[in-house]
Amino acid sequence: MPARLIESLSTTEPLAEVFSDDSVLRAMLDFEVALARAEANLKIIPASASQAIARAADSAAFDIAAIARETLRAGTPGIPLIKALRNRVAQEDSGAADFVHWGATSQDIADTALVLLLKKAAPILDADLAQLQNGLQALVAKHKDTVMLGRTLLQPATPVTLGLKAAGWLGAVGRGRARLNHAFSEALVLQLGGASGTLAALGKHGIKVGETVARQLSLSYPEAPWHTHRDRLANVVCACGILTGSLGKMARDISLLMQAEVGEVAEPGGSGRGGSSTMPQKRNPIGSTIALAAANRVPALTAAYLAQMIQEHERAVGGWQAEWTTISEVIQSTGVAIASMAEAAEGLTVNEKRMRANLKSTRGTIFAEKAALLLSQKLGRERAHQLLEQTTDPERLRDRTLSEVLSQMPEVRDCVSKEALRKLEDAGDYVGMARQFADRLVRSSPNQPPRRK
Amino acid sequence: MPARLIESLSTTEPLAEVFSDDSVLRAMLDFEVALARAEANLKIIPASASQAIARAADSAAFDIAAIARETLRAGTPGIPLIKALRNRVAQEDSGAADFVHWGATSQDIADTALVLLLKKAAPILDADLAQLQNGLQALVAKHKDTVMLGRTLLQPATPVTLGLKAAGWLGAVGRGRARLNHAFSEALVLQLGGASGTLAALGKHGIKVGETVARQLSLSYPEAPWHTHRDRLANVVCACGILTGSLGKMARDISLLMQAEVGEVAEPGGSGRGGSSTMPQKRNPIGSTIALAAANRVPALTAAYLAQMIQEHERAVGGWQAEWTTISEVIQSTGVAIASMAEAAEGLTVNEKRMRANLKSTRGTIFAEKAALLLSQKLGRERAHQLLEQTTDPERLRDRTLSEVLSQMPEVRDCVSKEALRKLEDAGDYVGMARQFADRLVRSSPNQPPRRK
Amino acid sequence: MPARLIESLSTTEPLAEVFSDDSVLRAMLDFEVALARAEANLKIIPASASQAIARAADSAAFDIAAIARETLRAGTPGIPLIKALRNRVAQEDSGAADFVHWGATSQDIADTALVLLLKKAAPILDADLAQLQNGLQALVAKHKDTVMLGRTLLQPATPVTLGLKAAGWLGAVGRGRARLNHAFSEALVLQLGGASGTLAALGKHGIKVGETVARQLSLSYPEAPWHTHRDRLANVVCACGILTGSLGKMARDISLLMQAEVGEVAEPGGSGRGGSSTMPQKRNPIGSTIALAAANRVPALTAAYLAQMIQEHERAVGGWQAEWTTISEVIQSTGVAIASMAEAAEGLTVNEKRMRANLKSTRGTIFAEKAALLLSQKLGRERAHQLLEQTTDPERLRDRTLSEVLSQMPEVRDCVSKEALRKLEDAGDYVGMARQFADRLVRSSPNQPPRRK
Amino acid sequence: MPARLIESLSTTEPLAEVFSDDSVLRAMLDFEVALARAEANLKIIPASASQAIARAADSAAFDIAAIARETLRAGTPGIPLIKALRNRVAQEDSGAADFVHWGATSQDIADTALVLLLKKAAPILDADLAQLQNGLQALVAKHKDTVMLGRTLLQPATPVTLGLKAAGWLGAVGRGRARLNHAFSEALVLQLGGASGTLAALGKHGIKVGETVARQLSLSYPEAPWHTHRDRLANVVCACGILTGSLGKMARDISLLMQAEVGEVAEPGGSGRGGSSTMPQKRNPIGSTIALAAANRVPALTAAYLAQMIQEHERAVGGWQAEWTTISEVIQSTGVAIASMAEAAEGLTVNEKRMRANLKSTRGTIFAEKAALLLSQKLGRERAHQLLEQTTDPERLRDRTLSEVLSQMPEVRDCVSKEALRKLEDAGDYVGMARQFADRLVRSSPNQPPRRK
Repeated sequence: MPARLIESLSTTEPLAEVFSDDSVLRAMLDFEVALARAEANLKIIPASASQAIARAADSAAFDIAAIARETLRAGTPGIPLIKALRNRVAQEDSGAADFVHWGATSQDIADTALVLLLKKAAPILDADLAQLQNGLQALVAKHKDTVMLGRTLLQPATPVTLGLKAAGWLGAVGRGRARLNHAFSEALVLQLGGASGTLAALGKHGIKVGETVARQLSLSYPEAPWHTHRDRLANVVCACGILTGSLGKMARDISLLMQAEVGEVAEPGGSGRGGSSTMPQKRNPIGSTIALAAANRVPALTAAYLAQMIQEHERAVGGWQAEWTTISEVIQSTGVAIASMAEAAEGLTVNEKRMRANLKSTRGTIFAEKAALLLSQKLGRERAHQLLEQTTDPERLRDRTLSEVLSQMPEVRDCVSKEALRKLEDAGDYVGMARQFADRLVRSSPNQPPRRK
Repeated sequence: MPARLIESLSTTEPLAEVFSDDSVLRAMLDFEVALARAEANLKIIPASASQAIARAADSAAFDIAAIARETLRAGTPGIPLIKALRNRVAQEDSGAADFVHWGATSQDIADTALVLLLKKAAPILDADLAQLQNGLQALVAKHKDTVMLGRTLLQPATPVTLGLKAAGWLGAVGRGRARLNHAFSEALVLQLGGASGTLAALGKHGIKVGETVARQLSLSYPEAPWHTHRDRLANVVCACGILTGSLGKMARDISLLMQAEVGEVAEPGGSGRGGSSTMPQKRNPIGSTIALAAANRVPALTAAYLAQMIQEHERAVGGWQAEWTTISEVIQSTGVAIASMAEAAEGLTVNEKRMRANLKSTRGTIFAEKAALLLSQKLGRERAHQLLEQTTDPERLRDRTLSEVLSQMPEVRDCVSKEALRKLEDAGDYVGMARQFADRLVRSSPNQPPRRK
Repeated sequence: MPARLIESLSTTEPLAEVFSDDSVLRAMLDFEVALARAEANLKIIPASASQAIARAADSAAFDIAAIARETLRAGTPGIPLIKALRNRVAQEDSGAADFVHWGATSQDIADTALVLLLKKAAPILDADLAQLQNGLQALVAKHKDTVMLGRTLLQPATPVTLGLKAAGWLGAVGRGRARLNHAFSEALVLQLGGASGTLAALGKHGIKVGETVARQLSLSYPEAPWHTHRDRLANVVCACGILTGSLGKMARDISLLMQAEVGEVAEPGGSGRGGSSTMPQKRNPIGSTIALAAANRVPALTAAYLAQMIQEHERAVGGWQAEWTTISEVIQSTGVAIASMAEAAEGLTVNEKRMRANLKSTRGTIFAEKAALLLSQKLGRERAHQLLEQTTDPERLRDRTLSEVLSQMPEVRDCVSKEALRKLEDAGDYVGMARQFADRLVRSSPNQPPRRK
Repeated sequence: MPARLIESLSTTEPLAEVFSDDSVLRAMLDFEVALARAEANLKIIPASASQAIARAADSAAFDIAAIARETLRAGTPGIPLIKALRNRVAQEDSGAADFVHWGATSQDIADTALVLLLKKAAPILDADLAQLQNGLQALVAKHKDTVMLGRTLLQPATPVTLGLKAAGWLGAVGRGRARLNHAFSEALVLQLGGASGTLAALGKHGIKVGETVARQLSLSYPEAPWHTHRDRLANVVCACGILTGSLGKMARDISLLMQAEVGEVAEPGGSGRGGSSTMPQKRNPIGSTIALAAANRVPALTAAYLAQMIQEHERAVGGWQAEWTTISEVIQSTGVAIASMAEAAEGLTVNEKRMRANLKSTRGTIFAEKAALLLSQKLGRERAHQLLEQTTDPERLRDRTLSEVLSQMPEVRDCVSKEALRKLEDAGDYVGMARQFADRLVRSSPNQPPRRK
């Protein structure tokens, strides 16, 4: 039995529900019922068999532990499940049992079940993405002109705005959501190929049966079975990988800004959230932590999925058999990262006072570029840079600001006006296109309403 | 100096050229020239400076080894390159040197150079993909009805056609090509943000300069700089990962079919291709080998790229600095896999005789499913399965075929006609929708002409 | 709730038990009980408190679902578990509740619990490794002189022996077992550092408490707490990664040899093992399939673990929080691969007849190297190679063998004796050091009795 | 041609030299010369041939570009190199050409060359590791009692010492160095197996030849050839992966401590080191950046190596062919990370004043645990925690410290002495076992002198 405790940081409740034993079992049974119904419609199997199968397909009646145990010997959950289903059908209608799984292969049921689970997971992820976008849009709108320190290689740089920073997160999330939904819509296709992917056992009716099953399960019908062509699922996995990368970036930013020494933003607290077992004063960036844990894990799982795409002939020896685990983990880890960041974005506390203080504590050195532009017009770039390397030396600066030091240098006073020197350290005056870029990013990431479930 | 010998199996000549020192250098210089030109157009820097910069930007004149050496201390190739360019400009026009790289940051030049290299690589990959699709389409067309053994978990299964198998490869390649080209078109955007991504040093002209530079370099202009938002490039990397996965599957299939014991297809031979240093008789599946090597490597590189997406604030500490290596390897490995498979597909020799022989050597056991369908109509599925498990036992079968054994069993003769038993082992009669599926796959993967370079 | 169905191919029952909720919970409680006991021994907390804690620490009494739920908010399972334990203790002895978890931090309990789980898993893996070595040693002993085709790049090469092949597997398994056990013994250390890893809350007794707790839990006591130094666990993960790589190689070999067209070995069959839902005749290489699935997955999980080693300061933000999942999966996947290969090795059926037939079907071309050595003594290497490239051409060879063709060439007859030509295709005569190498490998991989549990 | 510019951040000069074309070529030629010499000693080939081969084996005389080009068609660099060597030998002594590469296979030369490169790389890494240990030992010695803020989840925690922090890094580096050297010593073994790993072409002399070649190349002689058993090399790769993980942790810590807002340590600056193309005031944590880039990359490359361990039979189809690239990158990335951290450790500037200021700026909240211990003795843990959650609320604290607030509460004054409250915020008084743990770590990581090259 896998441990909920072990996986508790890698999923959310709704997603754990989607990938629960009961949900898996029901998805497999849904496939068998839809298959039988389609075959009965097309007079391939008796209508009574289809009805018996539908009646027997009650997930609560199956012994999951036994099926799991036999799976390891069979190499696929399809075989023991079908056997168990046949047994149940046979109890009621022994003739009908023969028509269980008619013409299909065990990977058909496993793959279609997986796709059905993805179909349930997609709107959950999407709703949380919509909420995250909402939270970020509000943040951008509120902080369009909130100036803060830019930071490159974790060192102070020229100022930015919180609006631009949040708009950057938003842009990536918007692109990620579009990619993910596109990948889902491409991947939500039926798997039905029979023993070797030709549906030979269904004679001339193969495609017709497939189309009917797909319709019943509200899946698309692909050009052909795809037992060993996993690129569509790989694309879903990759879209998750890219998205958690973007969420990890956002989480890293927030956790850094939330350092006590920086103190510019804080994740929401609240009962049981981010506390410590020993230190009562602690308020940990728990949403960011969870998202970063996911962003550390999903790339490797993506590699696992891509590596196992090398699948032999009509059915793989090894490449396919671990897919369920990998995909279910990727979706759940991505989901917990989205949900964590949505909660963080919505509840983010901004400390503008600390932002101003942090800007000020650089003593104007971050405006060295701005000063260099001013000075180099008269002194040339080289002399200007040289001069600024000296003046921004902390030893020399001590308690003074850059403009104070500069204004005491005759060479500088000769070429730059007092007015210009006074405005040198006005951060809001030096954020360039921050507002325009933020606007452009917001416009490019419109928040679509979440997908219907 | 990196060793060509070490990387010789991981690239092709045209791609090695794209990612060569000279090409990298030229891309960086192209950025600087385009930037200066745009700024001169907008009267931000003197026209004479722009011209001096253009004249100095001759890649042959730079000491690549020195720049590489200084890169390790600077943390980015942009800094030493700009310094070297300034020195060259200064030799001619000392005033102009100040205007080199005006308003930009070192990551602007590095990222844009990378994008320019991708722009050169894209049509190379695409042309080889087109060739691969051509080769596969011809294969499908020629072998629509070439029946061969299906194989699942490396064991004989019901028959398929080579046409369907090749159409499966084709479908995956077509989808992969579409994804890759879409990813490229999304990623080929200018990087220009200045120190913190606000273009503050360019005052109000920031976006105008950017749009002009982008136009000159034939790149798109993004909503905003993307120094620490790498999802578009990640999408290119992922598209490569998925594509090499599909190529690896094709290569695995070919190398398996080419085993002497199977002997159903052979890669083209030819001078120096796939020989052995010791065994004169050898003809190795060298294209598949190269493609599999790539498919073993690219997934991990994809993970490396996704993992490093967690980039701090306005410029990363570590996440960004290894990107060039990772992306250039991903593109080159993908490229060598495509080229290898294109060559293999075009020159693939098919041995239909061996295909028939391999079908036959199963002594009809692969038609057990077909027989089961026949028998279960009268005997019920359970009895039919039981009967077939016995008859397909190799000990029992010995030199006889399944139909021979069956036709000697009274229980069978009672319920199946001689005619049906005779046709039991007609493989061509049991390929279901193979032809239709192949047709659908071909129609879904139209071969677009390659992208203009 | 995670689904047993989803993970059924990625674990064994005994290992799933080790990483079950109850087992995790008990390990955490064991830590708390041992801590309290040690502190009571050292008079840091009252003996009555220690006793109350021990009494309350009954795993059956805890609501695992509730703890899992709160874990997501707390960021660690330690916090809700400690809270629940305090509540239980308080019901009996409200004063004692204060002394639960005295001086420790939540990562202390989580890490030590993980180590305790590893301590339970280690002998399970080791026993299966011993069984695997036994199986392989028997195989080597029995088939020291069983000659079979060597295969390079999946093409026929000069002959080898099955003894050497199995000894190669054995050597890798032996080295892998030694590495894994060494890694475990290094990693089975207590974690106890308190809030920041200094044990400040325990005053001067810190190390003494630690040593006592370690002794009680039969763990080693490390030089210092290792909250953000994960190299010892990384080494366990890597040892698993290397070992599954070696097992994957063995599984690949077996699955290839088991192809119907090769037919040289077969995995054991048996009820429910490796059958097909549709094809009654199938006998799939199910052990190899499971091992290959693990070998496809564990490398990526290894990367996940190594990537998350970059942990901040005294406690990580994200790097640590997904470790339980990753490690528990690595151990279980490795375990199922070992068990699968142990079963395969013990029950492997060898078909020497097919081995001889496959050797023969090369028509002597695999002895081209041998012939080249013979011929080049007289004709020079170049002429010999040229000659052999011609004669090994299948077109030319047709139904004849290499020695037949050669013996008809005057140029050859002039320089090689009839006797030598006759022995040319004697495979047993051309296996070089196969037996010696196999002996050396066996001697280097002595089968230690399994670790005591 | 691979670009030095692209790889400039992923290697050091000495390691780039080791893996340069000339070095690779020389290693391959060294193998051929040693092989010929051993065979001449054992009278297998003429002494004159051995001498001719030795004379021809001048790396400068080979056309590397041509060999690289042919490698792609041959699938291995061994084949074109041997051909070129034969051509050169033939020019002088046409008979001798036949004896080039006698009895060996192309993977023998490639693998042994790789091992020879590793043998050259090992002491380079080791010398830098020794330097890194020296730097860290000095840091520990100097800062045993330098108290600083502990930080968990990037939030302030109870104090630690810089000595303990640096000792933690040292411990991990020491263990990593031991693992790496052990892995190297296990992996530095000759590869010599001939066509299928039996050395059949050498008749009875196989092992004797191998032992002689190994001795000449100062390599160990393994139990048997290991063409498709790569676990020893995998262990080297993993040891690098673990070590870069530990270095990445150290680099992350340093880059975080070097943030302007924290300001507790600084990497050494110096000409061209860590500057900015635009911001003259910048001093970037360039060593940490380079190490983090490596630590982001090496885990994925480790996964690539482990994944490709699944190698077929006697020689792999794809698994082996990309190994050179992967291993050479792993070694170089690890090397640049070690060198960067060695430089950082040696030149690290420590700002004790900022450490004290940062401790103070928490206003005593980090001593909440300490206070809780004090208070709970009288008030019980629950009341104490409750009280401290209130008092550590920043809103309530404002400009006061925790002890100031507490000392104004009658409930507190009743149970804690003034003296105890006064000492509450004495950080040096609350570092527990920091010094002892640091001492233990130092003792466990003795700095061995570097390996002889």
